[in-house]
Amino acid sequence: MEEANGSEKKKKKQAGRGIAGPTNPMVTPLLTDLYQFTMAYAYWKAAKHQQRAVFDLYFRKNPFGGEYTVFAGLEECVRFISNFKLSQEEIDFLKKNLSITCEDGFFDYLRGIDCSDVQVYAIPEGSVVFPKIPLMRVEGPVAVVQLLETPFANLINFASLVSTNAARHRFVAGKSKTLLEFGLRRAQGPDGGVSASKYCYLGGFDATSNVAAGRLFGIPLRGTHSHAFVSSYMSIDEIVDKSLRRKDGSSTCEDFVSLVQTWLSKIQWSKSLRGVFSETNQSELAAFTSYALAFPDNFLALVDTYDVMRSGIPNFCAVALALSDLGYKAVGIRLDSGDLAYLSCEIRKIFCSIENEFKLPNFGKTSITASNDLNEETLDALNKQGHQIDAYGIGTYLVTCFAQAALGVVFKLVEINNQPRIKLSEDVSKVSIPCKKRCYRLYGKEGYPLVDIMTGENEPSPEVGQRILCRHPFQESKRAYVVPQRVEELLRCYCAGNSDKKEETLPPLRDIRERCINQLEQMRPDHMRRLNPTPYKVSVSAQLYDFIHFLWLNEAPVGELQ
Amino acid sequence: MEEANGSEKKKKKQAGRGIAGPTNPMVTPLLTDLYQFTMAYAYWKAAKHQQRAVFDLYFRKNPFGGEYTVFAGLEECVRFISNFKLSQEEIDFLKKNLSITCEDGFFDYLRGIDCSDVQVYAIPEGSVVFPKIPLMRVEGPVAVVQLLETPFANLINFASLVSTNAARHRFVAGKSKTLLEFGLRRAQGPDGGVSASKYCYLGGFDATSNVAAGRLFGIPLRGTHSHAFVSSYMSIDEIVDKSLRRKDGSSTCEDFVSLVQTWLSKIQWSKSLRGVFSETNQSELAAFTSYALAFPDNFLALVDTYDVMRSGIPNFCAVALALSDLGYKAVGIRLDSGDLAYLSCEIRKIFCSIENEFKLPNFGKTSITASNDLNEETLDALNKQGHQIDAYGIGTYLVTCFAQAALGVVFKLVEINNQPRIKLSEDVSKVSIPCKKRCYRLYGKEGYPLVDIMTGENEPSPEVGQRILCRHPFQESKRAYVVPQRVEELLRCYCAGNSDKKEETLPPLRDIRERCINQLEQMRPDHMRRLNPTPYKVSVSAQLYDFIHFLWLNEAPVGELQ
Repeated sequence: MEEANGSEKKKKKQAGRGIAGPTNPMVTPLLTDLYQFTMAYAYWKAAKHQQRAVFDLYFRKNPFGGEYTVFAGLEECVRFISNFKLSQEEIDFLKKNLSITCEDGFFDYLRGIDCSDVQVYAIPEGSVVFPKIPLMRVEGPVAVVQLLETPFANLINFASLVSTNAARHRFVAGKSKTLLEFGLRRAQGPDGGVSASKYCYLGGFDATSNVAAGRLFGIPLRGTHSHAFVSSYMSIDEIVDKSLRRKDGSSTCEDFVSLVQTWLSKIQWSKSLRGVFSETNQSELAAFTSYALAFPDNFLALVDTYDVMRSGIPNFCAVALALSDLGYKAVGIRLDSGDLAYLSCEIRKIFCSIENEFKLPNFGKTSITASNDLNEETLDALNKQGHQIDAYGIGTYLVTCFAQAALGVVFKLVEINNQPRIKLSEDVSKVSIPCKKRCYRLYGKEGYPLVDIMTGENEPSPEVGQRILCRHPFQESKRAYVVPQRVEELLRCYCAGNSDKKEETLPPLRDIRERCINQLEQMRPDHMRRLNPTPYKVSVSAQLYDFIHFLWLNEAPVGELQ
Repeated sequence: MEEANGSEKKKKKQAGRGIAGPTNPMVTPLLTDLYQFTMAYAYWKAAKHQQRAVFDLYFRKNPFGGEYTVFAGLEECVRFISNFKLSQEEIDFLKKNLSITCEDGFFDYLRGIDCSDVQVYAIPEGSVVFPKIPLMRVEGPVAVVQLLETPFANLINFASLVSTNAARHRFVAGKSKTLLEFGLRRAQGPDGGVSASKYCYLGGFDATSNVAAGRLFGIPLRGTHSHAFVSSYMSIDEIVDKSLRRKDGSSTCEDFVSLVQTWLSKIQWSKSLRGVFSETNQSELAAFTSYALAFPDNFLALVDTYDVMRSGIPNFCAVALALSDLGYKAVGIRLDSGDLAYLSCEIRKIFCSIENEFKLPNFGKTSITASNDLNEETLDALNKQGHQIDAYGIGTYLVTCFAQAALGVVFKLVEINNQPRIKLSEDVSKVSIPCKKRCYRLYGKEGYPLVDIMTGENEPSPEVGQRILCRHPFQESKRAYVVPQRVEELLRCYCAGNSDKKEETLPPLRDIRERCINQLEQMRPDHMRRLNPTPYKVSVSAQLYDFIHFLWLNEAPVGELQ
């Protein structure tokens, strides 16, 4: 990203910032609620549309019964507003769909607007965040910023929700396991799937099955075969080309099928598998053999199409041992049904026994992947039972955020024309925190974040080593002094708008993922635990506290006793 | 759609069928799981890729604890395969991401494939459907049809889920209420929002707030203003242009603001509002007045920014009465918080009282819209409490299908090379029903659908007035004779592929919606009720039953007692 000084230069820069548009081409200025346009008209009609307004985007409650959230979706928002422009066709559509009484001048105005004078301050994507603290502070002409409410909420809500879900799955699975996102088919529509793949990776997953997401975001891809592949074979005779070159290229085995069959009869009476099976399913054997011929370097077999222990595992072992004869190392198996804890332990024993019996170093470590309707709870239950699973393929519950399918990100006006504004509600948790604010994270002696604090824009920033009073925004009695060991300003400039502020660059997805993983590791463990986690404290300065309550009293109507 | 006879003609026709691509341009052949491509390679490597395979797409369980599902997403599938073509760039990406051992011939093969020889038979979109019955039967070269699994499941799963959710909301709300979908900001990503808007309309909603969906699908749009609009005003002095022409154009009121203020003081001591309020919030009064000046014909005010009864309603009434003086009829109010049942009743009383006191015909019927985190349960609770709400704006719970965020549509191989195939599982509900099948809905004397039945492709079709045995596919003892009064074949040809079958046209969304509403009305009421609905029966013919169980025994391995 270039730097610029003058505001003319600035204008140019914005236009030429060269930021690509949103990933999904459907994200256009019309991807918003109609009322954003009716309000824009009303602002324009009242000659109020150019008033500078500040909106905060934040959520009120952490999802999944937890006490943390991963912030994601920022890059898409920046890409959206960096390319914000209404086409003539879009304007014509609006003209037809607003009232016939709307004046033409408004549509001329719409034709001219872009977001070059909109400022976006935000917490970096991939950060761990908490309720009430603005994730984004958006400032600009009220009519324009109003139009951004719906697309911003849409782009942040699901992104943050599913990143958090992924992070929670990673937390339960543990660092050493491989986590694969397999959710595309069950996701909420095409980019429900694509964004789930992106944001699950951001939240700590290792790979996805979603080819489109691999291409768009460079996420590692994984996948081998399904039950249909297995049942598409009738018998081993279907395999015509039976030859397989040794891995080192030194020679070719002309009849790999026979080699597999020899191994199958050998292991039937081996110590490792004796009595486990009599006759295995021949469709399955054919499918495994065929798959191994196609991908000798990447043989991972789905073993539960007919019967895991009596067919799938013996068939897998026969093919794996035949591959081993030719210098290839089978990758492993996938279980998609049954008692995953028990089966994985039984299978591990067989793999270890084969390692010993046939002197195959590391065969015992052959990878076991599990993938049947997994979620946080089942991962936790598997851990408690004890298992031998190396990798999890997780779909439905992960990508649709089944446990809680929505995050309640809101976008509230906090200042207009330099006047702070508040939105009241009988439900205190829904009262908005007025003023253009700064936000800080204060760290304690042990390096953990202690509290987030919001201050008015012009208050002095908290200082390392200096005591500061942190107040609950609404509960008078909740307050604490903090002496921060480190102070981090949370909101950074991503779109400078008409200011000369330096803009943050948009980091690659890999770096965002890194930030997410690091920040989660830095959290005090009691905030992270699944059961009864300790809430992380979110506060306001004493000065901001007083102002909120002054404004509140000022705006609330006084009742009348009769 | 044209008709064609020869298979050459056919090829041309497919290419020139002129069906637009999927709504979301991200829906490309790469929007699939990697394993579809690894399998395609393995099929190709085994020279098996051209074998004709039949896959059934179906679900196993109705969502939301109900006993029915609305089938949706078909048009997007047809649009997808009618334009299916891998670009060179996509092929290059695959080449890099499959194994380096994959032979070049495969990528040449990929370059050539389209779906011109894929047949799609499906139940018409918008139909009421049930578990196990194929929603779609897809037949074609195994490697090609395999690639369609993930995108088809993705396009059908959420579409059917959210249509069903909308239909359930409509059922609880009742026919007379207006249902507005307001979910875009909380949806699972951009087209989670767009498709929710489309399919909620299909399922019986009346309108959406989503402008993009309005433009794409012609869905009626609705929306007025938000809390931010209200709090963006500081005082009534902000309004500069205060003039408003009478509706009939006969004259202009030069100071509409004063007219509003006059009405406000008049109603403060009126019979209707006496003692209800003292001073209303002036920001709110300014915002309402300003909005009315912008949209005098469409004045609908959000009345809960400060205090519904002490500020919002009096301010609304003052503006509405002033509008009425100039010949305009205010549309109504929206409530977004509080006790919706109670408030709506209180507000209705005030509206009726104003109608009488000021001789304003129909003012009592001024519309009341409610919109605070509504779902099936809250609608039901409102009905039980009694309320005066005319319209519901429903968002989060509707569009994310919060009560159950995924439908488990699966895609199973049922035949390859004319050989029926079965997928076994220790969980009987997961065993697939083999064979290329025909499906019928049998209607009883009272006109209700009685049972759906699957038969082998070549069995004679059930006949009106002739007794037929309907068997549960897996439970031996569950069977019943039925004498149908009407027989409807369910699967119709949407893509004829290499056959000369006439293709169904793709109806407009409005017609699909109509079908959905009609079919739901035709269902026997006990299948539809929210609490303990009666399951609708799904069956197989006696011949198909016998064949399933023959194949099952044949494929399952026999254990060995030791």
